Amino acid sequence: MSDTICAVSTAPGTGGIAVIRISGPSALSAVAPLWKGKSLFDVKTHTAHLGDICDPLTGELIDRGVATVFRAPHSYTGQDTVELSVHGSRWIQEELVKQLIRQGARLAEPGEFTRRAFTAGRLDLAQVDAVADLIAARSRAAHRIATSQMKGSFSRRLAGLRHSLVELASLLELELDFSDQEVEFASRQRLRDIARQIHDEIDRLCKSFDRGQAIAEGIPVAIVGDTNAGKSTLLNRLVDNDRAIVSEHRGTTRDTIEETATIGDIMFRFIDTAGIRITDDPVEAMGIERSRQALHRARIILWVIDSTMTDQEITHTFNQIFDGIDFNSKTLIAVANKRDLTRRTIRLPYGEGMLRTIDIAAATGEGIDPLKDEIIRLSGISDDADDITVTNLRHYQALDRARTAISRVISDLDTEEYGVFVAQSLREVIDCLGEITGTVTDTEILATIFSRFCIGK
Amino acid sequence: MSDTICAVSTAPGTGGIAVIRISGPSALSAVAPLWKGKSLFDVKTHTAHLGDICDPLTGELIDRGVATVFRAPHSYTGQDTVELSVHGSRWIQEELVKQLIRQGARLAEPGEFTRRAFTAGRLDLAQVDAVADLIAARSRAAHRIATSQMKGSFSRRLAGLRHSLVELASLLELELDFSDQEVEFASRQRLRDIARQIHDEIDRLCKSFDRGQAIAEGIPVAIVGDTNAGKSTLLNRLVDNDRAIVSEHRGTTRDTIEETATIGDIMFRFIDTAGIRITDDPVEAMGIERSRQALHRARIILWVIDSTMTDQEITHTFNQIFDGIDFNSKTLIAVANKRDLTRRTIRLPYGEGMLRTIDIAAATGEGIDPLKDEIIRLSGISDDADDITVTNLRHYQALDRARTAISRVISDLDTEEYGVFVAQSLREVIDCLGEITGTVTDTEILATIFSRFCIGK
Repeated sequence: MSDTICAVSTAPGTGGIAVIRISGPSALSAVAPLWKGKSLFDVKTHTAHLGDICDPLTGELIDRGVATVFRAPHSYTGQDTVELSVHGSRWIQEELVKQLIRQGARLAEPGEFTRRAFTAGRLDLAQVDAVADLIAARSRAAHRIATSQMKGSFSRRLAGLRHSLVELASLLELELDFSDQEVEFASRQRLRDIARQIHDEIDRLCKSFDRGQAIAEGIPVAIVGDTNAGKSTLLNRLVDNDRAIVSEHRGTTRDTIEETATIGDIMFRFIDTAGIRITDDPVEAMGIERSRQALHRARIILWVIDSTMTDQEITHTFNQIFDGIDFNSKTLIAVANKRDLTRRTIRLPYGEGMLRTIDIAAATGEGIDPLKDEIIRLSGISDDADDITVTNLRHYQALDRARTAISRVISDLDTEEYGVFVAQSLREVIDCLGEITGTVTDTEILATIFSRFCIGK
Repeated sequence: MSDTICAVSTAPGTGGIAVIRISGPSALSAVAPLWKGKSLFDVKTHTAHLGDICDPLTGELIDRGVATVFRAPHSYTGQDTVELSVHGSRWIQEELVKQLIRQGARLAEPGEFTRRAFTAGRLDLAQVDAVADLIAARSRAAHRIATSQMKGSFSRRLAGLRHSLVELASLLELELDFSDQEVEFASRQRLRDIARQIHDEIDRLCKSFDRGQAIAEGIPVAIVGDTNAGKSTLLNRLVDNDRAIVSEHRGTTRDTIEETATIGDIMFRFIDTAGIRITDDPVEAMGIERSRQALHRARIILWVIDSTMTDQEITHTFNQIFDGIDFNSKTLIAVANKRDLTRRTIRLPYGEGMLRTIDIAAATGEGIDPLKDEIIRLSGISDDADDITVTNLRHYQALDRARTAISRVISDLDTEEYGVFVAQSLREVIDCLGEITGTVTDTEILATIFSRFCIGK
């Protein structure tokens, strides 16, 4: 906190403008030698000033830009901060950082501005994680969880838990102090009730992680079916009216392609599993095996059926694709395509009622909206903004440990001799929760958290 | 100018922070419904305010950010402007632009903020071009020209020329008015002298374009020689101590690769022309032909010689590589490599003194600095910051037309009957120069200029 850091805070590359952030006790002194304009020492906090930024040695103009001054403690980091808004050329960005380093500033490490905000007590660790999540959020649902967490809703919930835990601890302590006198201050049942409530609350948070992960990473959806069933057309229909981020990630395996897109407010990862069929060729079989593994990862499977095929052909295709697939944690939707060409009744291999079928005509767009609604519904992501969702693995792991410890507290309370062991377990629960918000910190944990950040934040 | 525009002004993608710029008469009204914090209508110009940015319909938090207000006319565009500095997630950026459009703002076209600055008379067109050049600048030399032009040095030079032209025009007009009275107000020689001075000045500017282009685009340098001569090691040596932007552009042809790097303050485009040799294979010959074309484009050729080869082998290589190459606009440097292995005197095919030879040992780094100095020297780019360099094709074309017109003026002045034709030519010169700064504008020219910009500038 005693030195001054600087970094380009905007996205890397060339843009209309770029912002270079300088923060620390010498932020103003680092900028001053480069600055030709109103003295930044004399200006009020939260004011913006146009000026020339020059090489102090040669006097040569580097850029004309705007400097915004945030004086301690009224800044993001809590320290004196200057933000230089300049033309977004890569050369200017690099040159300014070089010049600032020459003036005694140091290149910030990833997330170091936010780390200073944490050290200054302006954010707790759960909020720090939320900042990283917010920047990474790619759908409204992921964004919603991150903003809620940034505002402190998760931290407040943890504070509530901590409050109950401290209450439980003091009740226990009283009991322990007077245990030889056979005075019972709190009924054993009361202690058990509090512990049970804490357990259930922690358990609920733990259970939200599965959903949280799906929201953050995107829900895997496999689109399967014959080549001519209309899979690509369907995929385009599903994503086309949505101007959200669509990008292609070629997976680690060559044969599966994932495409990420948001439908409604939720991000989905569509897995193209073209090419699954029964083969004798060992090389092809290896490729098919990879596609099958992709299919295993899917939570939702859209089986696209060419309705113009015979029921026998459809059943044959079904057997080829789904041979050996465990549908336990998956939902299969049969999508009867090409309904613009035929309206015939299709008899699916699993029999009527077993499989939800949605009729569509990908070519005309008919039936796409009901299909989208069904996909969103099956994603299992409710719109309940009040509910806290854990998205962060670190948080989940701490909660999971807390859950184990509180379970131990409960079973200890059932035995006669709990005494000091219960107090220990209780301490462990409190520490686990404290790790999340950072009241209990560890250098290694901090390093992991801030390594998620980009430089400049 | 009557509507309000908005755009993400920072580089596309995810970053620590992103800036969304809103400008126009309703800039404050467009932001107000999203803004929870101090009313932006009431704050002073050039002040920054922390607040919540929310969806006005649902009240849901989009982000917590800083709004900086610039009131008309004290802004870049001359109009009311708000800059929202927010977390740099792509989702937030897209959502905010969507929300602002819902509030009546319009997505800005490329360069539209700068276009408004031009319309408001805050920048002339030469300065507008300089802004685009500044953002695109990738070396100190290119950056220097752009800043000088942005500050108005080129515009002032043009204003000086315009002043002389107007003087010339009025002297001519006087002559014309009184031509039937045989009164000679200005000596014919005086008129010719002024016109000649104008011509020479325009001619100097035209001639600087070749250099300007080289600075902006990078000076093409071909590195040729046998595969084992050490070309790659040399290239790495040339660029490695320089932390400037190094990127690979795969050319339009598959067989040549260009690598851009700055040495000192100047950008060079290194062209890899591996594989030039005499062959009977028609397919290989085609590839070699492409490499040869790349060689033709080079201004500087570094011929890397393996000093451990015999003079006969070296001569043979030389003939293979340079067969049919016209050295007219090129400089060839013989780089005798592997001087750590042998110090023997090399007899080059062109005889002593004909070819500048620099001894290096790419493996150890010996001789690299003198070679760099020589490359910089041969680039022909002087460090003369006062000199105006034309880098823009549009400027060059206008100057070239002006040069043709002023030449016509001069030759007309040599004939007895100049009269009205001279005045016309003179008008043309003034108009051509006016096109550069935008005193004479044309919708098509404007469209071309601003299409160079990114959205958000």
